[in-house]
Amino acid sequence: MTKPSPLASVRQSVQNVAAYPYTPSQARIKLDQNESPYDFPADLKRLALERMAEQPWQRYTDLNTSSLRQGIARLEDWDTDGVVVSSGSNVMIKVLTELAGIGQTVLTTDPTFSVYPLESGLLGANLVKVPVNADLSLPLKALKAELQTRGPGLFVLIQPQAPTGHLDDPATVRELVEVAAGEGWLTVIDEAYHQFAGSDYRELVRECPGVLSLRTFSKAWGLAGLRLGYALAQPELAAQIRKLVPAFSINVLTQTALEVALEHPDYVIQRTQEAISERARMLAALTGHPHWKVWPSRTNFFLLQSGDVASTFRYLEERDVVVRLQKGLPVLGDCLRVSVGTPEENDAFLAAAAEAR
Amino acid sequence: MTKPSPLASVRQSVQNVAAYPYTPSQARIKLDQNESPYDFPADLKRLALERMAEQPWQRYTDLNTSSLRQGIARLEDWDTDGVVVSSGSNVMIKVLTELAGIGQTVLTTDPTFSVYPLESGLLGANLVKVPVNADLSLPLKALKAELQTRGPGLFVLIQPQAPTGHLDDPATVRELVEVAAGEGWLTVIDEAYHQFAGSDYRELVRECPGVLSLRTFSKAWGLAGLRLGYALAQPELAAQIRKLVPAFSINVLTQTALEVALEHPDYVIQRTQEAISERARMLAALTGHPHWKVWPSRTNFFLLQSGDVASTFRYLEERDVVVRLQKGLPVLGDCLRVSVGTPEENDAFLAAAAEAR
Repeated sequence: MTKPSPLASVRQSVQNVAAYPYTPSQARIKLDQNESPYDFPADLKRLALERMAEQPWQRYTDLNTSSLRQGIARLEDWDTDGVVVSSGSNVMIKVLTELAGIGQTVLTTDPTFSVYPLESGLLGANLVKVPVNADLSLPLKALKAELQTRGPGLFVLIQPQAPTGHLDDPATVRELVEVAAGEGWLTVIDEAYHQFAGSDYRELVRECPGVLSLRTFSKAWGLAGLRLGYALAQPELAAQIRKLVPAFSINVLTQTALEVALEHPDYVIQRTQEAISERARMLAALTGHPHWKVWPSRTNFFLLQSGDVASTFRYLEERDVVVRLQKGLPVLGDCLRVSVGTPEENDAFLAAAAEAR
Repeated sequence: MTKPSPLASVRQSVQNVAAYPYTPSQARIKLDQNESPYDFPADLKRLALERMAEQPWQRYTDLNTSSLRQGIARLEDWDTDGVVVSSGSNVMIKVLTELAGIGQTVLTTDPTFSVYPLESGLLGANLVKVPVNADLSLPLKALKAELQTRGPGLFVLIQPQAPTGHLDDPATVRELVEVAAGEGWLTVIDEAYHQFAGSDYRELVRECPGVLSLRTFSKAWGLAGLRLGYALAQPELAAQIRKLVPAFSINVLTQTALEVALEHPDYVIQRTQEAISERARMLAALTGHPHWKVWPSRTNFFLLQSGDVASTFRYLEERDVVVRLQKGLPVLGDCLRVSVGTPEENDAFLAAAAEAR
């Protein structure tokens, strides 16, 4: 008898998936991960650290993360029972795939945020991707057709879209959400970047019990290193999601820092405004570029195309700027994704752009 | 046509599972969660907070958590490529269930650590539980029979066992691991409490490529509030596990604090010794109690039986001591699980015990 492989019990769908692709760069100007270019304000950081010093680190955190959820509920004008927190919104995407994807369907656009297809593949969901329209808008008719035939499962809408930055007509989103509800889908509206678009789907979530809004402290709040994502849903759905989030998953340090952020949210407004005006400045400066084409965006990043993105990527890296290479995007082809940085960082990027051939 | 339920896409196995049961108590002496009674040493806490102040909180953390994994590898004399970290070992249990449990079997003892059956239920694994022997030891023959007929899947061995505190003969563990390997199972040896038992299955993991040791900073290290668990495995298996751990899952604050702990591990030794001697003192004092029976233990907690555990629980709570109620444990029946606290806390518990009827 031959001995079984030591990986004999590792599910084939896991073995089939490649590891998460990300290679860090040494370039000084980091425009590759859609982070905020600014650290948590120094006075808030100090306050958070002082409070962390007073916490007992050896104790499990509050199982229900009550005070954090209450802070989010106040911020969002939401029922605390409808708030679910997780250590990063990618954890929530795993949880949502577990909730409604395993053995069922995950329906999304193509392109989409990479973690949705990743978790679908790992967990054995039937992934259905519908290409966006040529102008990057949602393919209303094709999505409706899939919604009417492929359920049940998880329907993923990203507003504004990632990785394109496109914001859709709210009427289109509403129509899709209503069709999905009528067919029994669970719909996630991923609003990771909504502050940069001025969009907000809370009202739709209030109306529809099978819909949730997924939000994060990693983008406009500038706290990617702390790992906090959250869902806003109606309480009945939130209770189901919460079962799948590992217990005690928000560590005492993140919880404490986030409570400080939620008590002092004003810094987010000023920074968001700066990101929006810097985005406009960059896109305006790049319009009419002899070799590059940029796409409009409602997020804190935008897509850029050039004749040869790999060499443009290297050219920028030599100028100490790192962006994100996105090869072979559906509809778009090869692109670079560029985050909006500080005005000085953006100047450096634009200076490099002006000299690019 | 009737409208589908808003939870129509929520998988039935999730709807069937009850929420994680834990009710916090206001009692001052907290012996209910097997935590360390001591906070992170004050000088290390200060050092960790100083380093956190210097980190950029707006940046995603190192995707590969390299420096943390290197620190663990040094501590454990292990290949860095064989170390996988997660934000708590309960997250790793979810990941292992995803790796080898979904649509397959999870085989464990009864009783077992509650998160294994929980994740099996949520994720749709076929859960098989084999009652432990009357002396709480592993049911060797019955487990072998299941291993030979139920695979593939995840085989869960907890050493020392939770929630009983029983440590098994290493020959029994080795025999089970070898049978499991021969049948293609993935085996997790959950060693959350191994420091309190003086046991260590690294050598067996080095020999067997389909086996991993699961460890935590929540118990002997006294850092439950920071959330860090890790697996030691051979690199090929570690690479598969790592695919399922959400990216960037160790936040910058935990990462920084853990690096400080790993640079100064000595405090763990002294505390572990104290917990072991306090455990012996408590068990000795309780032996021959007129109404209570205690079970021997190799962990930082022990099981206690009384005529009516619910009233004993309330009696202790009135004396400002909270323990964990575990009703209807297989083989054992109703029990209380008591963590070892500081000498003063243990004195308070023993004083209450002396007056219990």
